[in-house]
Amino acid sequence: MNPTLRIIPLGGFGEVGRNLTVIEYDGQMICIDCGLMFPEGDMPGIDIILPNFNYLKDNVDKLLGYFITHGHEDHIGALPFVLPNAPAPVYATRLARGLIEVKLKERKLLDGTEMHTIAPREVIEIGPFKVEPFRVSHSIPDTVGFAIDTPLGMLVHTAEFKFDLTPVDGQTTDIHRLAELGQNGVLALLSDSTNAERPGHTPSEAIVKEAMERVFERASGRIIISTFASNISRVQEVLNVAAEFDRKVAVVGRSMENNTKMALELGYLKVEPGTIVGLRELEKYPDEEVAIVCTGTQGEPTSALVRMAHDNHRDVQLKKGDTVVLSASPIPGNEELVHRTLNELFKHGANVLYQALTPVHVSGHGNREELKLMLKLISPRYFVPNGGEHRMLVLHGQIAEELGMAPDDIYVLESGQILEFDGRGAAIIEDTVPGEYIYVDGKGVGDIGASVLRDRRRLAEHGFLVCVVTVEDETGEVLHDPEIITRGFVYNADATELLEELSEHAANFIEERTMNKDGKTDTSKVRNAEGEIDHVMLAGALRQSLAALAYERTKRRPVVLPEVVVV
Amino acid sequence: MNPTLRIIPLGGFGEVGRNLTVIEYDGQMICIDCGLMFPEGDMPGIDIILPNFNYLKDNVDKLLGYFITHGHEDHIGALPFVLPNAPAPVYATRLARGLIEVKLKERKLLDGTEMHTIAPREVIEIGPFKVEPFRVSHSIPDTVGFAIDTPLGMLVHTAEFKFDLTPVDGQTTDIHRLAELGQNGVLALLSDSTNAERPGHTPSEAIVKEAMERVFERASGRIIISTFASNISRVQEVLNVAAEFDRKVAVVGRSMENNTKMALELGYLKVEPGTIVGLRELEKYPDEEVAIVCTGTQGEPTSALVRMAHDNHRDVQLKKGDTVVLSASPIPGNEELVHRTLNELFKHGANVLYQALTPVHVSGHGNREELKLMLKLISPRYFVPNGGEHRMLVLHGQIAEELGMAPDDIYVLESGQILEFDGRGAAIIEDTVPGEYIYVDGKGVGDIGASVLRDRRRLAEHGFLVCVVTVEDETGEVLHDPEIITRGFVYNADATELLEELSEHAANFIEERTMNKDGKTDTSKVRNAEGEIDHVMLAGALRQSLAALAYERTKRRPVVLPEVVVV
Repeated sequence: MNPTLRIIPLGGFGEVGRNLTVIEYDGQMICIDCGLMFPEGDMPGIDIILPNFNYLKDNVDKLLGYFITHGHEDHIGALPFVLPNAPAPVYATRLARGLIEVKLKERKLLDGTEMHTIAPREVIEIGPFKVEPFRVSHSIPDTVGFAIDTPLGMLVHTAEFKFDLTPVDGQTTDIHRLAELGQNGVLALLSDSTNAERPGHTPSEAIVKEAMERVFERASGRIIISTFASNISRVQEVLNVAAEFDRKVAVVGRSMENNTKMALELGYLKVEPGTIVGLRELEKYPDEEVAIVCTGTQGEPTSALVRMAHDNHRDVQLKKGDTVVLSASPIPGNEELVHRTLNELFKHGANVLYQALTPVHVSGHGNREELKLMLKLISPRYFVPNGGEHRMLVLHGQIAEELGMAPDDIYVLESGQILEFDGRGAAIIEDTVPGEYIYVDGKGVGDIGASVLRDRRRLAEHGFLVCVVTVEDETGEVLHDPEIITRGFVYNADATELLEELSEHAANFIEERTMNKDGKTDTSKVRNAEGEIDHVMLAGALRQSLAALAYERTKRRPVVLPEVVVV
Repeated sequence: MNPTLRIIPLGGFGEVGRNLTVIEYDGQMICIDCGLMFPEGDMPGIDIILPNFNYLKDNVDKLLGYFITHGHEDHIGALPFVLPNAPAPVYATRLARGLIEVKLKERKLLDGTEMHTIAPREVIEIGPFKVEPFRVSHSIPDTVGFAIDTPLGMLVHTAEFKFDLTPVDGQTTDIHRLAELGQNGVLALLSDSTNAERPGHTPSEAIVKEAMERVFERASGRIIISTFASNISRVQEVLNVAAEFDRKVAVVGRSMENNTKMALELGYLKVEPGTIVGLRELEKYPDEEVAIVCTGTQGEPTSALVRMAHDNHRDVQLKKGDTVVLSASPIPGNEELVHRTLNELFKHGANVLYQALTPVHVSGHGNREELKLMLKLISPRYFVPNGGEHRMLVLHGQIAEELGMAPDDIYVLESGQILEFDGRGAAIIEDTVPGEYIYVDGKGVGDIGASVLRDRRRLAEHGFLVCVVTVEDETGEVLHDPEIITRGFVYNADATELLEELSEHAANFIEERTMNKDGKTDTSKVRNAEGEIDHVMLAGALRQSLAALAYERTKRRPVVLPEVVVV
C-alpha cells in the first residue's frame, strides 16, 4: 500500500479555533500550532485546557516539528505542557518566537528546546514536507499561514486571517502568493471559520484608528484603554494616537508589560522616545496629557481594569472625567463578567466606550465575503473548515457549496478524527486518535476528568451533607448524636432544626437496624461474613434515606455522604 | 411637613429590567409590576430571584394594589411569592390577567386574590392616585404603560415599549395620548432603558414576518420554530405564515401549550380552524406540510428544542432536511448554552436559522432613537431611566442630556433607593428600603444568602475534603485510619496515594498532640476546662494543616472539614 497523507485536528472549541493540527505523511508528522483553550462556565476550577497530546507523545520519534502561525495564547499556550511530553523543534516567525521564548523561559524549558525563526516565502524542507509560510493579516503582527507541499499534493493552512488592506502594521495578506498557489493547484485548504456567521467584510483596523482619534480628541481627563496583552497591533494604534495628541502612556499589568517590552525589543512596536512612561511617573502630568494601556477586556477578576473598576488597584483610582475604552469584544461565556465590569465603571462616573457604542474594536477574523475570497483564490480540490465552533465549520462548508464545491469534497472534522488522502481521493477513516480535552487544574495535568467535573457541578448546585455516625461494635448503639457537616446546602445558622432532625434521623435509622423492636441489641443482621459490622452497607442505606429526607424538607439535592464509624 | 411623593425601584438587573417599582404618596402606595429575575452564572442552585418585598410586607396596610404592565415572567412571575406576604388587589389587562391567573391557580392563590381587568385610557381612581393605562407595543399583546396622576404632578411609567408602527397585533404605542400627556406637563418619566446601547430604531415585527415567509418558502422538510412561551405575537406570526403555506402546526412543551391555550381562549391568538393539531396527529402529514412551535431558545436543558438537539425528545427526532429556527436572542449569560444547542442542531444535519444569520427575531424594546422620541413626547421635568443594567440606565440618562435635560434632573436609581418629590424639587434621600435580591432555591425563599452562595462557588472550584478521625478518650489514641471523604477535589481512584498520605498525616497530627515524644499518652494539653478532649479545637488545627498539605501537593484549595470523634 502506498503511503497516505493525513490531517488530524486536535483540540478546538469556543472561539479559540483548532489549537493543534497534525499533518502526517508516511508516518512522519508536523504540527500546526500548539495552543491552549479557556474553560467554559461548566468547567469549574479548571485553569486551562490543552489539546490532547497523547498521539504526539506516543509517536514522538516521528514528530518533526511544531509550526506556529502566530503568538496568541490559543496557538502557542500549550507548548510548555506539550513539549516536555512530545519534544520537537519549534518553527515560528520572529514575534511569535519572542512570545514563546518568554513562556519557555518561565518554565525553564527554553534551553532544551530547538527554536527556528521562519519568514514569509522562505521554504523549510522537513522530512517529506516543504513548508512555506505566507503572510496573513490578523490582530497580531507577523502572522503566517502555511503552504505545505507533500508528495500527494499541496495543502494550504490559512491560519487566522482577514483581508485587511489598511492594517496598522502595513502587513497585508499575501494575495499574490495565494493566487499563485491556487493557480498551481491545491489538494486541500484548511481555512479559518471563526466568522462564518458574519456577513460582509470585517472592517479594517483603520476604523479603529479613527474611533481612537475621536476618543482622544474629545477626552478632557485621563484615557484608560484596555485590550488583550497579545494584541500588539492595537497597542501600536494607541501609542500612535497618543503621540499624535501629546499624551504620555503607561503600560499596566504583568502580561501587558511583558509583551510590550518584548515587542519593543524586537521592533514590532515603534514608539517615539518619551511616549511610554512608568505608572508612577504619570502622576507628574495633568490628566489631559495621560493615557493608560491595560488588560481586563474579558472582566478577568485579577486584571488591571477590573481591579480599577472595583476600587482595588494599587496605583490607579478611577474618577469622574476619566474615559475608559474596552477595545475588544467579549469571548462567548465572558459576557456576564464583562457587563458587570462595565456597570462598575459607569458607577464611577467614567465615560465608558465599548464596541456596542463606538467602533473601538474590530475582529481579527475575516467575515463571509473574505472567506469566499480565500476559497476562490485557492480553489482547492478538498476543503476543511478549520477553527471555530461546530456550527461555524458547517456554515463555512455551506459557503464553499455556494461557490460551487461538491458537498462530498467538504470535510467538517471533529477533534481526533482523521482525514486521509491516498492519491486518488479523500475520506474520514474509521480509526481515530485521542481527541478529548486535557484539563489543567493547579498542578494536575489530565487528572481531572468528566466525573470530577460532574461532582463539582453537583456540589455547586446544592452543596454537600456529610453525616458521621459512631456505632459501638458490640452493642450496635449509636454513641453521640450523629454529626452533620454541610456547606452550600442551607444556611446552617438558620437551619438548626433541620440539621437536628437529620442527625436524629440518622441515629434512629442505624439503631433500627442494630436493635430489636424492644430496644435490645441485635447486630447480627448488619454483620458481614467476617462477623464485622458492615459499615459500608449501613452508610449506603443511610445515604438514600438522608437524601430523601433532605429533599422532602428543602427540594434540594445535596451530595449526601454518611460515614459510619464502628468503635 | 407636607406629604411627599416617592419612587422606589426594587429588583432589577441583567436584561430583565426593574421588576417592581413602588409609587408612594403620603404613605399610601401602589406597585408597578411584580416580576422575577433569573439567576446568573455565579448563583448556582438558585431557581429564581425575587425583588425584595420586605418593604411591602412591613407596610401592607398602606398597599393599595399591583398594576401590571404586561404578562412576561419578569413582570408577573413574583406575584405567587409576594402576594402571600403582601396581599393587595391586582390590576392587569385581559391577557396579562389570564397569564397571572394560570400562575395563581397552580399555587391555590387565585381565590384569595382580588383581580381587576384594566384597559387603555380607562382611569382607575385608587387612594391619592388616578392611574390611566395607555397602550404600548412590545413583544406580547396588551402591554400598557401607566400615567399616574398624583397630588404633586403626573408620573408616566412607559412599561417596556417600542414604536413599532406595523406590529403583528396592530396594537401601536398610543402616541396621541403620550403627546397629550406631554403637552399637559409631566413631573417625572420612568422609561425603558433596555436598548439604550443600541443605535437607531428596533426593526418592526413586520421584518420577522418577511423572514418567516422566506423560511417557509424554502423549507422542503419539517419546520421547527422555537421562541419564548410568552411571545404570543411571535406565535401568532408563525400561525399566520403556516396557514399561508398550508402547514399544520403542533404546539410542544408545557408552558408553550398553556400560554397558547390561554391566548386562544381570550382571543389574543387567532387561527384558522384545523391549523393547530396535536403532536401525534402531525405524523399523518408529510414533512413539507408540518411545523412545530416550541421553547428552548435559551438552551434550557429541559426545553423541547434542547431535548430534540440531544436526541432525547419523546416524540420528535431531528433529521436531515429539517429546518430549525431560533426566534429569540440569547439573554446575556445564556450564550454558552445557546451556542451548544446550535452546534448540536447542526450536527443533525438540520438547516438551522437564527438571528446572526437571518432576521427571525427582533427586540421588543425601543432603540436609542425611540427612547429619544419618548423623552421628546413626554418632555418631563425629571427623568428616571428604568429597566436594564446600570450602564444602560446611565446611557439612557446621557440620551436625555443630549435632548437638553439638565444632568441634575436625571436620576439613576439603585434597588432600594428612594427618589422623593416634595412639590418644590426632587432628591434621592438618605433613607433606603431593603433592596437586595431574595433567592428562591427549592422550597426555600430567602434562606440562601451571600455566604451559602460563596460556599457553593468554592465547592465548585475544587470540591471538598472531609476527614473523620476517631480518638479514644482515655488514651488519645487514634482508632482506625482516619477516613478521607472527597468529591470534586481529585479523581479518587487515581489518587489513592495522596488520600493515604492525608489520612496518615491526620493521624500523626492528632497523636503528636495527645502523646509525648516517647509515645506515651498525654492528653492533658488537649483537654478543655471540663476535662474533655477539645475536639473542636483539634479539628480546627487539623483543618489548617490538612489544607496546607492538600495545596502543596495539588495547588488546589478544596473546602477542608475535619471531624474529630472522641469515643
